Amino acid sequence: MFQEAEPATTSLKGSPAVPEYQRTCRLDINRAQHVLYVVGTSLDVSVYRSAPPGSKSFSVKCTSKVKYSISPPTSETSHLSPIPLNNNTILLISMDRASEFENDSKLSVRYYNENKNAVGVAVLHLTGVEISLDVDADRDGIVEKNNPNKGSWKWGPGGYGAVLLVNCDSESKFCKFEDDSSKQEFIFNISDLKDMSPMKLRTRGPARLPEGYKLMMHICLGDSEKICVFRSISGNKNDNGAENKRSVKDYPLVLGPEVLSQEVPYPGGNAEMEFHVEGLEFPDKDFDGLITINLSLLKPISDGVPETPIFTDKVMFRVAPWIMTPNTLQPEEVFVCRTTDNQQFLREIKALVAKTGFKLKTCEPYMNRGDRWIQDEIEFGYIDSPHHRFPVVLDSPRDRELKNFPCKVLLGPDFGYVTREPQSEEVSTMDSFGNLEVSPPVTVNGKNYPLGRIIIGVAFPTAKHGRNMTKVVQDFLWAQKIQKPIALFSDWLVVGHVDEFMTFVPAPDRKGFRLLLASPDAAYKLFRDLKNNGHGQARMFDGLPKEEKITVDELLGSGSLKNQNDYVQSCIDWNRDVLKKELGLDDEDIIDLPILFHLEPEEGFRAGALYPDMVNMIVLGKNLGIPKPFGPKVNGRCALEAEMSSLMGGLGLNCTFIDDFYSYHKKLGEVHCGSNVRRKPFHFKWWNMEL
Amino acid sequence: MFQEAEPATTSLKGSPAVPEYQRTCRLDINRAQHVLYVVGTSLDVSVYRSAPPGSKSFSVKCTSKVKYSISPPTSETSHLSPIPLNNNTILLISMDRASEFENDSKLSVRYYNENKNAVGVAVLHLTGVEISLDVDADRDGIVEKNNPNKGSWKWGPGGYGAVLLVNCDSESKFCKFEDDSSKQEFIFNISDLKDMSPMKLRTRGPARLPEGYKLMMHICLGDSEKICVFRSISGNKNDNGAENKRSVKDYPLVLGPEVLSQEVPYPGGNAEMEFHVEGLEFPDKDFDGLITINLSLLKPISDGVPETPIFTDKVMFRVAPWIMTPNTLQPEEVFVCRTTDNQQFLREIKALVAKTGFKLKTCEPYMNRGDRWIQDEIEFGYIDSPHHRFPVVLDSPRDRELKNFPCKVLLGPDFGYVTREPQSEEVSTMDSFGNLEVSPPVTVNGKNYPLGRIIIGVAFPTAKHGRNMTKVVQDFLWAQKIQKPIALFSDWLVVGHVDEFMTFVPAPDRKGFRLLLASPDAAYKLFRDLKNNGHGQARMFDGLPKEEKITVDELLGSGSLKNQNDYVQSCIDWNRDVLKKELGLDDEDIIDLPILFHLEPEEGFRAGALYPDMVNMIVLGKNLGIPKPFGPKVNGRCALEAEMSSLMGGLGLNCTFIDDFYSYHKKLGEVHCGSNVRRKPFHFKWWNMEL
Repeated sequence: MFQEAEPATTSLKGSPAVPEYQRTCRLDINRAQHVLYVVGTSLDVSVYRSAPPGSKSFSVKCTSKVKYSISPPTSETSHLSPIPLNNNTILLISMDRASEFENDSKLSVRYYNENKNAVGVAVLHLTGVEISLDVDADRDGIVEKNNPNKGSWKWGPGGYGAVLLVNCDSESKFCKFEDDSSKQEFIFNISDLKDMSPMKLRTRGPARLPEGYKLMMHICLGDSEKICVFRSISGNKNDNGAENKRSVKDYPLVLGPEVLSQEVPYPGGNAEMEFHVEGLEFPDKDFDGLITINLSLLKPISDGVPETPIFTDKVMFRVAPWIMTPNTLQPEEVFVCRTTDNQQFLREIKALVAKTGFKLKTCEPYMNRGDRWIQDEIEFGYIDSPHHRFPVVLDSPRDRELKNFPCKVLLGPDFGYVTREPQSEEVSTMDSFGNLEVSPPVTVNGKNYPLGRIIIGVAFPTAKHGRNMTKVVQDFLWAQKIQKPIALFSDWLVVGHVDEFMTFVPAPDRKGFRLLLASPDAAYKLFRDLKNNGHGQARMFDGLPKEEKITVDELLGSGSLKNQNDYVQSCIDWNRDVLKKELGLDDEDIIDLPILFHLEPEEGFRAGALYPDMVNMIVLGKNLGIPKPFGPKVNGRCALEAEMSSLMGGLGLNCTFIDDFYSYHKKLGEVHCGSNVRRKPFHFKWWNMEL
Repeated sequence: MFQEAEPATTSLKGSPAVPEYQRTCRLDINRAQHVLYVVGTSLDVSVYRSAPPGSKSFSVKCTSKVKYSISPPTSETSHLSPIPLNNNTILLISMDRASEFENDSKLSVRYYNENKNAVGVAVLHLTGVEISLDVDADRDGIVEKNNPNKGSWKWGPGGYGAVLLVNCDSESKFCKFEDDSSKQEFIFNISDLKDMSPMKLRTRGPARLPEGYKLMMHICLGDSEKICVFRSISGNKNDNGAENKRSVKDYPLVLGPEVLSQEVPYPGGNAEMEFHVEGLEFPDKDFDGLITINLSLLKPISDGVPETPIFTDKVMFRVAPWIMTPNTLQPEEVFVCRTTDNQQFLREIKALVAKTGFKLKTCEPYMNRGDRWIQDEIEFGYIDSPHHRFPVVLDSPRDRELKNFPCKVLLGPDFGYVTREPQSEEVSTMDSFGNLEVSPPVTVNGKNYPLGRIIIGVAFPTAKHGRNMTKVVQDFLWAQKIQKPIALFSDWLVVGHVDEFMTFVPAPDRKGFRLLLASPDAAYKLFRDLKNNGHGQARMFDGLPKEEKITVDELLGSGSLKNQNDYVQSCIDWNRDVLKKELGLDDEDIIDLPILFHLEPEEGFRAGALYPDMVNMIVLGKNLGIPKPFGPKVNGRCALEAEMSSLMGGLGLNCTFIDDFYSYHKKLGEVHCGSNVRRKPFHFKWWNMEL
């Protein structure tokens, strides 16, 4: 059993088993050393350090599983003659596989004096184990064994690194919201398991670790508030080998906000142990989304002295970002509010949604308490991982009468919830999510945004008293990284939302979509053409008995209105230039819609739509629900509707004009503000993005 | 003056003058438009939008400085025939140089009906200006004109982007420490100018901007606490053209923590205006060090309505990181404390420093108040930029009796100060800067660290009651980025500092240095050799009347001491493995020093040196000041000193053994703990690092 082995010829670097890992190890001629060795590492032994006085040369013997090399390499004269000893002679020792029994391998170094007489022998008893903490680093839904990249994270199709979901749906609450998370000893709910990322500890070696050695799982303080790790206690199988019904007690907490390290049992022999990792927090300003979980093998020292780690394996997760869904994705559910005064609107929206075949959900008065602006209270998105995916609603800090809706109605099994609220800063109209949109996928100067780009509205940085979206929400949006936000200028509007002047619709050609922009110039052009064609006396607001009618001639005759709209056009043009640049659009990707605004002197000369703002529409596949503009009629047909239908018809889109005049328009909103759409996720997987 | 121009044939993209910038601009057939144009941008005009009813084609005329192109390109049949009008016809207009007078250039579009009769003409009066906000983006100390990369930042020798210093020396205090920084209207002190980065506004064009236009400098809220910008009011010259003595009133504040935007005068004609940019904060956990300053040209709209920016130029700065200096850099000043009991030590240190020719500075008792651990209170470093460089002391949160020293003695003109103190967390011995060191430059697996890597000591993450360096200091160190820190395990020591078991000394060969490690194994080897050579009765601590003597035989005979040192060796070996990996070292780069430790049961079995800890030395070029170990004597010479001199002599280094036994060693420190060295900065410029 104790035979001479050839020095290992292959380099020990870059071993595929575990990350390169060299451990200094000691010989002692007075007592045999017992060493626990982890397969894939190497032991680095100074032969000189332990040499007895008078030593001039040495020889090495070892058993079959043990390999060694000598550094610096010696020019051996004969295979059997001793090797000269220098003060920098290093022995690099490894084992090619795990032991079956403790101390089943051995290496000895015999020292000789100048007369080649033996003056001492140092013996190492070796026990080899394989230890691997494993995750789904290749993102195929399966926890592969010892992926060489499991300890790091890389974006893109050639990338690697495991993914973690924030368990923000409602089978369980966040650990951090619990009264005392340090007291949490088990998983909250068995059904939470599917929201968690699988992780496995795989070992090979003797049935037990040598006396006093232990395995410890640990995280750093900074990561501890971001995750929980639960262990699956195995062996609970019935006589047929099928698992018995499991309870939460089969999933004890290993790591969490209050538990930074904990011993985990050595599975023993050729075995594996299952863990479940739960994300607690989304990426944010002070959290890049990356989490490292460590598993260390600890060596006993003596009573009162902490054990020393002799090997550490690491795995890295990235918490999945929250992803928004643009108008070009297929709808799944349409949401509107029922109020005391919007029956007509509801009927028309219902008819439209029924035509498209999607689901309509009505938020009833007991829940909306009169707040109809369901676009402003929430933004639908989702989170995705190789093992699971579910929708997540971002709740606006706006918190008007609809504030309980996202938490009380939407949040549920496989429907997550997240919010960001400023601590001291005041919330403004800019924090409503009509001011938060997302573009379809774009490519900008060669840079791909396969999930589009988020769009928010703010004040000009040069404005002294501008209104802005609150910092905590902006920080959250930027921290998700995959839909890099664009800040537009929307503070020129009374309500201040980007959805008042822009939207995206699907298109069969070019980039797969068009950007629609409100355009006073386009409106003036249309009205001038009307006048020119003899319709100067056609009247706005026909069919609205309470409204004062305005003729095309009157409209065109107002110099003040023209000045106001010149200003509005310059504001929209500024945004047009930014969007062209940031989304890589050409003028041909943009369609100007004929919409006029007027400024409100008592609102700081901010703008609102003069007639229902057609750009503020709901997009349901090829069907658009558009605020009915009540424009001047030509041959019995509204000229604005005709123009709109013609522009959209060119893209194969159908326009349905919905009367929101009194129920929404006069309250400073329109169809988009009063509805919301949950859409299907992207086919594209966010981790395949090149960042 | 009004002539037909050829369409511009060169692409307008990638103009070298300013970043690509396309601005939507409008025509109006009813009134001539006056447009302020910025050279290097292009105006994007929809010809269709403003076409009078019945228009079918158009023609364009312009004056000599004006260039235009038509998109999509038309297949013109004849040079003189009108161009067919489509609803997506765009005119891209530019000027190749600035105007001398307002409205000195002109472009007109004439519209024709289907009979080719003119139906309207739209006129643009153009005023061209050149505007460039300039910084030293190529890092040569000179503010070049309109560097195409000035708005971004890139590391490395091929990189770009300007550099900002934190004005943390003491001509002025930080703005943020002022009672009311919003009231600060001028620079604090003229001599502060040299600490600031130069920035210039260069313009070319008419003597004045058109009525109502203005230039606004602005920063975002997140950047505002990080910088101040001051303007230099020019023109204060005497008759000989020489500048009069300038006062702070010649440098008014433009931007700062309370001033996010401010109008700046248009310098007019072919002129430039000087600015001075001051950094206020070092990079940290929540600040990546990058700052953007914007200059916008604002167009007037009407009373009460904020002006619209029509052009924005941006420059980016990175705040220079704080840089530590390793032992391999030449000393400039050596610091020690005078106490009531360290006369002998002071004499010996003085003699050593005198021999080396460096400066010795003594911190007197009124300032140190009995606190001799000057290594622990401060860490010397520096900040560097192409225009200026000065030393900066990092003040430890330790704050014992020496706490006023860094602020009251070191801080001064061209000597900066920075500190980080935890708000609630308790400060521990791990926060002393004997626990903060830096390696010489290294290359690790192909990755260069030309400024070395920072080294700190912490507890094992698996330890339940470990002591750690406070988070705010760790965050600060990591955020500097250029000397990526390594965390070692030092919690096994009573005092817990990395300088108790490691240091670096210069070497003429290999990587230019050696890592010295305390090694109980090396000590046992030395003592065994002594015994073997008949010196078993040689005694430790000869010459120290109060100390109990220990013979070599007694030392070797203690099984308990051997066990304790086996543990210490395993702790040091763990760090050795980490340092080899993280610094890319081979065993040949490391020298083991013969040092023994003992564990203190009443200190949780933590370790302290058994005799003066020779690795805790002061490194002054080729001269080392080493704690005198009082080892066993052989032929009248201390065997430990002999071994140390032999090991260091091989590197061409001279050892001076300094008696610190009662004044430092018995108080749990040694020479290094009781001294500090300010060293020359690196020749290598940090911005040339590849990150």
